Amino acid sequence: MTGSVVGARTQEQMRQRNLSEVLRRVHKDGAVSRAALGRRMGLNRSTIMDLTAELAAAGLVREGVPIGRGRAGRPSIVVMPEQGTLYGLAFDVAVDRLLAARVGLGGQVLDRREAVRPRAGVDLEDVVGVLATFGRELVDRAGPGALCVGVGASYCGLIRRADGTVRYGPHLGWVDQAFGAELAAGLGLGLPVEVGNEAHLGAIAEHVRGAGRDVDNLIYLHGDVGVGGGIIVGGKLLDGDGGYGCELGHMLVNPFDGRPCLCGSRGCLEAEVGEEALLDYAGRSGELVGRDGIRAVVALAGTGDARARDALDRVGDWLGVGVVNLINLFNPALVVFGGMLRDVYPGAASRVRARIDAHVLPVSRERVRLAVTALGDDTTLAGAAELAFANLLDNPLDTLATLR
Amino acid sequence: MTGSVVGARTQEQMRQRNLSEVLRRVHKDGAVSRAALGRRMGLNRSTIMDLTAELAAAGLVREGVPIGRGRAGRPSIVVMPEQGTLYGLAFDVAVDRLLAARVGLGGQVLDRREAVRPRAGVDLEDVVGVLATFGRELVDRAGPGALCVGVGASYCGLIRRADGTVRYGPHLGWVDQAFGAELAAGLGLGLPVEVGNEAHLGAIAEHVRGAGRDVDNLIYLHGDVGVGGGIIVGGKLLDGDGGYGCELGHMLVNPFDGRPCLCGSRGCLEAEVGEEALLDYAGRSGELVGRDGIRAVVALAGTGDARARDALDRVGDWLGVGVVNLINLFNPALVVFGGMLRDVYPGAASRVRARIDAHVLPVSRERVRLAVTALGDDTTLAGAAELAFANLLDNPLDTLATLR
Repeated sequence: MTGSVVGARTQEQMRQRNLSEVLRRVHKDGAVSRAALGRRMGLNRSTIMDLTAELAAAGLVREGVPIGRGRAGRPSIVVMPEQGTLYGLAFDVAVDRLLAARVGLGGQVLDRREAVRPRAGVDLEDVVGVLATFGRELVDRAGPGALCVGVGASYCGLIRRADGTVRYGPHLGWVDQAFGAELAAGLGLGLPVEVGNEAHLGAIAEHVRGAGRDVDNLIYLHGDVGVGGGIIVGGKLLDGDGGYGCELGHMLVNPFDGRPCLCGSRGCLEAEVGEEALLDYAGRSGELVGRDGIRAVVALAGTGDARARDALDRVGDWLGVGVVNLINLFNPALVVFGGMLRDVYPGAASRVRARIDAHVLPVSRERVRLAVTALGDDTTLAGAAELAFANLLDNPLDTLATLR
Repeated sequence: MTGSVVGARTQEQMRQRNLSEVLRRVHKDGAVSRAALGRRMGLNRSTIMDLTAELAAAGLVREGVPIGRGRAGRPSIVVMPEQGTLYGLAFDVAVDRLLAARVGLGGQVLDRREAVRPRAGVDLEDVVGVLATFGRELVDRAGPGALCVGVGASYCGLIRRADGTVRYGPHLGWVDQAFGAELAAGLGLGLPVEVGNEAHLGAIAEHVRGAGRDVDNLIYLHGDVGVGGGIIVGGKLLDGDGGYGCELGHMLVNPFDGRPCLCGSRGCLEAEVGEEALLDYAGRSGELVGRDGIRAVVALAGTGDARARDALDRVGDWLGVGVVNLINLFNPALVVFGGMLRDVYPGAASRVRARIDAHVLPVSRERVRLAVTALGDDTTLAGAAELAFANLLDNPLDTLATLR
């Protein structure tokens, strides 16, 4: 009865799923032996050989003997992503810069462009103009043998995933702007642009190739002017019913006396720990600004400036309240700080930890680690690259057939 | 190449997965036609017929023609769960009572026992003694042809899922008590007892057969003395890295002036909206107590008692802060109130909604519904029954073979 119950359609689905899983692992882990792949996927040797051979024939992976392995006996064949010819375009509209990169399958940045972005008064046309020019240059320089397999973009705002519309971009004042569609048109590659919220993408990047490679439950807090979040639950991004989940910057931590927030509310986490709060507490509002300003306050605190020290402590207290709530809610294995919080966290860690000790339930405190991003300021860009590769990884052969 | 790539092992896995999926749908939806099953699962007619025939031959489902359908043409065969012979035992250690029930496959309560539980000073032996006696009576009355397929228990505390240990039960003062193992020994059925946190199980029950049947992203808030939570994300319970997620009762909503909480912290959601807060604000602390006390305050507010009205408003304000944060974090389609919050929410709804209007981001406010539980006070018991059925639903034929 087995054969008839499975049915031809589901057999084919299973084969596609296995191909997808092999390519995903090679993309994530880099060079990996066939033996290790088989072990991790619970598949036998001949099945794995068939799968990797099929991916190699399609030009998605390369098989080879690892160089410099002096061990005796037959070496296990290693499978590597075809990073030289298959690439994704990744874009990042961050609070202070515009970024574009050509990223090879496997996640390596092969080429990149960057522009400083004014903090306000930048409309859709300006942003798309710069990014599309960057993108076309990157494609031109890739050479005729290379193939763009997808385009992803990170944006610091609320995104409707279905069509890449920016529903709300507080810093640029954008409301319902067709960013994804316009960038796709500007690039003229005949490919859609998948757009994601920067902190969601940061969480994905940390999970795939950053500080959270080995954990399936993590929280990523991304600071810039505001604070965004991405939450990985059981290995998947929590994106909520409409894709607008993880708005942890708008968690009310100080509901009745809080500082005003850009969202119109008061006492949101981002209002209490964002750039403005830190500079204001430090008495440097107006004088310092942006990422450099934040780094200056952190440096001042390190040299004994009392107001700067006090500012970091206050931000640490509120950040601690937010982190306590997130740990009690999600029982994560890891909390990662990125963006400007990468600079702030080390100086605020003792306050954050004191709150955790005081308020997190012991069962959830047992295992949680806190860390800064392992990908530096490229976290969100790396997440955009993951969006670019998503279709190829989900459906390797069909996606490639459509592209060629 | 298809056959070799799939491999015998994965074909068998696929068949088991399909059998599991059919049984799960029949368990959830009750009588369902083979045509509807095929449509929903994307399988053709003959594959579905094979699957349901195999489940029927094993005694897991029954197939039949629906009664009273007057329509012309060949009626579609309907598949029903074998609820008469296959049952689970479900237990509930709630804050004020001990419950036991025999629940048929498909979710119907076939028989039940209930005892009032003192609020404190009850040790593991007492609780297990009462529940095990109830359980043995329920098994005896089930008759010789019936088969117990699993045992689940709901407990109002933090549970280590792996072995059913109560890590922390604040109301009974339990720490690291081997509840699951002791109850299993007391029942003497040779079956393990799966134990879950009451609010986690409430969330599962609301998702499977309650107010959230049709949504995959929901939050369940369960009030008793404290407040617990269960969160379903993408159709699955968020249980965190150690199984201790969703402790939303210990979200800090009032971090610097808050009421003391049983957990040792201050200003936790449960300290601000729990039974004690409501009775205290109403000026009825010491006079009224428990669920009846809460209902009395709600009734007083309804008849114009100013202090009772004020108490409901204050609780509504803090409950609103908690709900705002949950909606901003999870972007759920539904928030369900159960336990004593089932009584409190209707009288506090306007305050909760005012907070949502003031503080939730528009994109997340667009779709969220708020409701009280559709399963009354049996929500947590129904969740325990789902634990009892979990193994059978995951692996129908193997589980049954082990049991018989």
